[in-house]
Amino acid sequence: MDWTARSVMLRHLLNNPSIVRLVGAHDGLTAKLVHEAGFEGVWASSFAVSASYGVPDASIVTMTQFLDAAETMTLASPAPVVVDGDTGYGDAHNAAYAVRRFEARGVAGVCFEDKRFPKINSFADATQGLVPAEEFAGKIRAAKQAQAGPAFVLIARTEALIAGHDLGEALDRAHQYADAGADAILVHSKSVRPDQVLKFGAAWGRDVPLVAIPTTYPQVGEQELLDAGFRVVIYANHGVRATIRVVREVFRVLSQTGTAIGLEERLTTMDEVFALQGMHASYRTAP
Amino acid sequence: MDWTARSVMLRHLLNNPSIVRLVGAHDGLTAKLVHEAGFEGVWASSFAVSASYGVPDASIVTMTQFLDAAETMTLASPAPVVVDGDTGYGDAHNAAYAVRRFEARGVAGVCFEDKRFPKINSFADATQGLVPAEEFAGKIRAAKQAQAGPAFVLIARTEALIAGHDLGEALDRAHQYADAGADAILVHSKSVRPDQVLKFGAAWGRDVPLVAIPTTYPQVGEQELLDAGFRVVIYANHGVRATIRVVREVFRVLSQTGTAIGLEERLTTMDEVFALQGMHASYRTAP
Amino acid sequence: MDWTARSVMLRHLLNNPSIVRLVGAHDGLTAKLVHEAGFEGVWASSFAVSASYGVPDASIVTMTQFLDAAETMTLASPAPVVVDGDTGYGDAHNAAYAVRRFEARGVAGVCFEDKRFPKINSFADATQGLVPAEEFAGKIRAAKQAQAGPAFVLIARTEALIAGHDLGEALDRAHQYADAGADAILVHSKSVRPDQVLKFGAAWGRDVPLVAIPTTYPQVGEQELLDAGFRVVIYANHGVRATIRVVREVFRVLSQTGTAIGLEERLTTMDEVFALQGMHASYRTAP
Amino acid sequence: MDWTARSVMLRHLLNNPSIVRLVGAHDGLTAKLVHEAGFEGVWASSFAVSASYGVPDASIVTMTQFLDAAETMTLASPAPVVVDGDTGYGDAHNAAYAVRRFEARGVAGVCFEDKRFPKINSFADATQGLVPAEEFAGKIRAAKQAQAGPAFVLIARTEALIAGHDLGEALDRAHQYADAGADAILVHSKSVRPDQVLKFGAAWGRDVPLVAIPTTYPQVGEQELLDAGFRVVIYANHGVRATIRVVREVFRVLSQTGTAIGLEERLTTMDEVFALQGMHASYRTAP
Repeated sequence: MDWTARSVMLRHLLNNPSIVRLVGAHDGLTAKLVHEAGFEGVWASSFAVSASYGVPDASIVTMTQFLDAAETMTLASPAPVVVDGDTGYGDAHNAAYAVRRFEARGVAGVCFEDKRFPKINSFADATQGLVPAEEFAGKIRAAKQAQAGPAFVLIARTEALIAGHDLGEALDRAHQYADAGADAILVHSKSVRPDQVLKFGAAWGRDVPLVAIPTTYPQVGEQELLDAGFRVVIYANHGVRATIRVVREVFRVLSQTGTAIGLEERLTTMDEVFALQGMHASYRTAP
Repeated sequence: MDWTARSVMLRHLLNNPSIVRLVGAHDGLTAKLVHEAGFEGVWASSFAVSASYGVPDASIVTMTQFLDAAETMTLASPAPVVVDGDTGYGDAHNAAYAVRRFEARGVAGVCFEDKRFPKINSFADATQGLVPAEEFAGKIRAAKQAQAGPAFVLIARTEALIAGHDLGEALDRAHQYADAGADAILVHSKSVRPDQVLKFGAAWGRDVPLVAIPTTYPQVGEQELLDAGFRVVIYANHGVRATIRVVREVFRVLSQTGTAIGLEERLTTMDEVFALQGMHASYRTAP
Repeated sequence: MDWTARSVMLRHLLNNPSIVRLVGAHDGLTAKLVHEAGFEGVWASSFAVSASYGVPDASIVTMTQFLDAAETMTLASPAPVVVDGDTGYGDAHNAAYAVRRFEARGVAGVCFEDKRFPKINSFADATQGLVPAEEFAGKIRAAKQAQAGPAFVLIARTEALIAGHDLGEALDRAHQYADAGADAILVHSKSVRPDQVLKFGAAWGRDVPLVAIPTTYPQVGEQELLDAGFRVVIYANHGVRATIRVVREVFRVLSQTGTAIGLEERLTTMDEVFALQGMHASYRTAP
Repeated sequence: MDWTARSVMLRHLLNNPSIVRLVGAHDGLTAKLVHEAGFEGVWASSFAVSASYGVPDASIVTMTQFLDAAETMTLASPAPVVVDGDTGYGDAHNAAYAVRRFEARGVAGVCFEDKRFPKINSFADATQGLVPAEEFAGKIRAAKQAQAGPAFVLIARTEALIAGHDLGEALDRAHQYADAGADAILVHSKSVRPDQVLKFGAAWGRDVPLVAIPTTYPQVGEQELLDAGFRVVIYANHGVRATIRVVREVFRVLSQTGTAIGLEERLTTMDEVFALQGMHASYRTAP
């Protein structure tokens, strides 16, 4: 049994010709549901984990809290878990230390982005500042040197487009990060059309896999992304957004009617929850 | 600012003539939504917190993990949080220690039940064993002596009906626990009709408030419970059950269609999540 | 890189003809010092970890707190870490779950004892109660089945002598635990002479290694234990006891004199602390 | 019972005419020993806590880890605990969030310094960079606005002298921080003579209390500091340095001799440890 087993799985997936879908989770339960739905991997979303704590997605949740959250997901789901590692929690020393800790907890990989620490969510209506590309490349190098085994996956994410820079800057940064040893490149965009990332893919021409997060341009298809050179697509926040919507509605009805009658078809049964928790398996309770 | 402020709030609620509704949460986000819906308090459900970890509801989650979960809820929501403290995590020493820790984290109260440690969920198809009433009364006394201030609320929960004993046994135990200092009595039932708890209420005749969890008998109304002498109703698990149902469905569609298009009306917007996280307030991002 | 690497190291040590010395630590620092002194392994002492928290050694520190403490030791020291796992934190389900968690954190092994949960320290002036041997053997079996790989080491500890039973009872229990799959047997004694454990060793006659903790009978030599069939000796509490003694004295002088002058020879230098922390290595500060 | 009770204690101490001595601790045990020796308060030293984890004193230990360490000290010792909060764990938002968390855990105060995040220990042979004074003053303002009650104490620490700036710069910064609402000013120095801090004190002339850490200039007396306008002296690292020295020596002897015989006078007794842990009080074990 190898604590890099999930990293090895993830590397195999990256080498396959089909798209790898990472889906955002914020706890063990949602990580289980990601796997159950047939997705290849879990995205330990910084946005969703921060939301589950009820705090802003702005480097408020600490590295050790993400570490525990990611371990919980790894224990709950057999799929590889990739941590949304924000900016690496500080400088190159912090990023390297985080890699050692995540790897030793059985996490498959981590994604670091080239924004300044502390970061703020890329879709927030806020000014986004990047660190110099050389500085971030140094962080990538430090992170890659820190991992104990060969399999752990480091995704370098450029926020150049988010910060208002052009495609050339995004490509230039991506090349520097790939040169520094990044195992994959995530180019983030908040454009409402996929043109930016598709152009990026067309211009990439390098065998380092590309990653996209089509939150604002959902009209793009997985095949279209694959054709454009992307190997990984991240559905980052749909679980937590669906949770909020339905819990709000169920609580509203419960509060107004003073009874759970009528809510049954919106609720899973107790027994299905027991099954998800492993109570039947561990405790041999029926069924 | 007083760390027992939430306990004081809860005590005021218990002294009011109207029903107090505690609603199950498993993280900061769901605790926020409980408050937002207008409920009086948050129930840090052992079932739901265990499910969020992806582990059985069987004394697997440790006291310190519940402590962190309850603190997260207390920080995220202005409502009083009551911890579902299972059996008290061991003997009277463990229960007393837990009370000191919960109280110091700003939790409003805790509920301990008279099952053996480790417990298993009351609705699981498993044999349930109780500790002798005298032993549990000793645990209640130790727990009450442990609290630093007068306000912290201790709910004693008898599982006599769950374990197959009759109403007389449930009443006898409840009286012993009230004599030992319990601030409220929860009588749990898995009957599909409310008769058991209503009879219990009719026979109680004591000013120690009663608490019900109508998971299996949702047809009972809050007014009916109030009339029967109950002051608190706990909707324990609806949030987590709604979450599982909707996330499953959203992930299924996402997996089958390969796109988030069409899911919009099941999802809250990113901006609504930002609002819940306090990003607009803290970071003055729009709106 | 394998998360059972430390377990493999520990198994090799157990198969060697020389004594294996596990020395009690309570944090990363003391675990580093154990390794630095040339000892073969670290004993994550329940007594010492509880003392570092300032709480009784009585199942107050939770499994997840021990998990974090043991991981800290594993990260800080290259030596294998064995967790003093008390009674297994509950029943067989709790013990099995704990094994999975410890193994996944890179801990080399765990020791469970046949006392009732919650336990109290074996040297405390308190009545000690054992669970039936069959029940504890079941816990051992569950724990062995839970580990993911073959290397993780489970030490079964009988407290029969501590609880006032005779050598026959201790041997009988030890055989049942070895039959159940224990990788080693710890026979604990608070006798002020080593006679009990030596007689136990003489009567054992089985290739399952024996473990001793000569806290109350320090006059026994390692060679004598080895000759009597013991393969592991645990110096469980000397680090924390030395810490208390010296810190008390240093604080007394500091408090009385109002100056650190004169204390130098009792203090390591700042630079030696930096070296232990890895600051020179990581940050290339001098020297 | 008030979670700011310790802050109130600390404020009373700061208003007294006698010196307030904060002594460095790294866990509950050392915090107990600080109080036992008669010191007024506990300094949750970043250096010592980092050392106890076995990691560099360089913003590697996260805010939530310090939070847990500080809470452990607060629970273990009746004295007020002041957290060495480094740079505030990021920007003003991080510092403000940390204050809310520390305050809610019963910590009496926190000290933030004007170095860049991530910091490195002030005595390390490394270049130290400061943030602009205005930026740090903004952090102080945000931190003061964040606290829920009036009592929590915020110490602003200038590292101007550590970073090689002159006394004028240190004073200028200190005034800006006091203007921004700091409750006390710590002027750190690594001079081997106290001249720098004494001159600072002579020039201060303001009723905001001053704090000194005479690690490198121990020849200064408490009365001399008091006369120079200092109200607080921090003995930051003597506990952990004494621990390392003695544990190293005890482990060396244990390793070489293979027996604990002869070590008795360096060790506290088991029973004294039990007393410190509260076992006699809680469990009524003898004596």
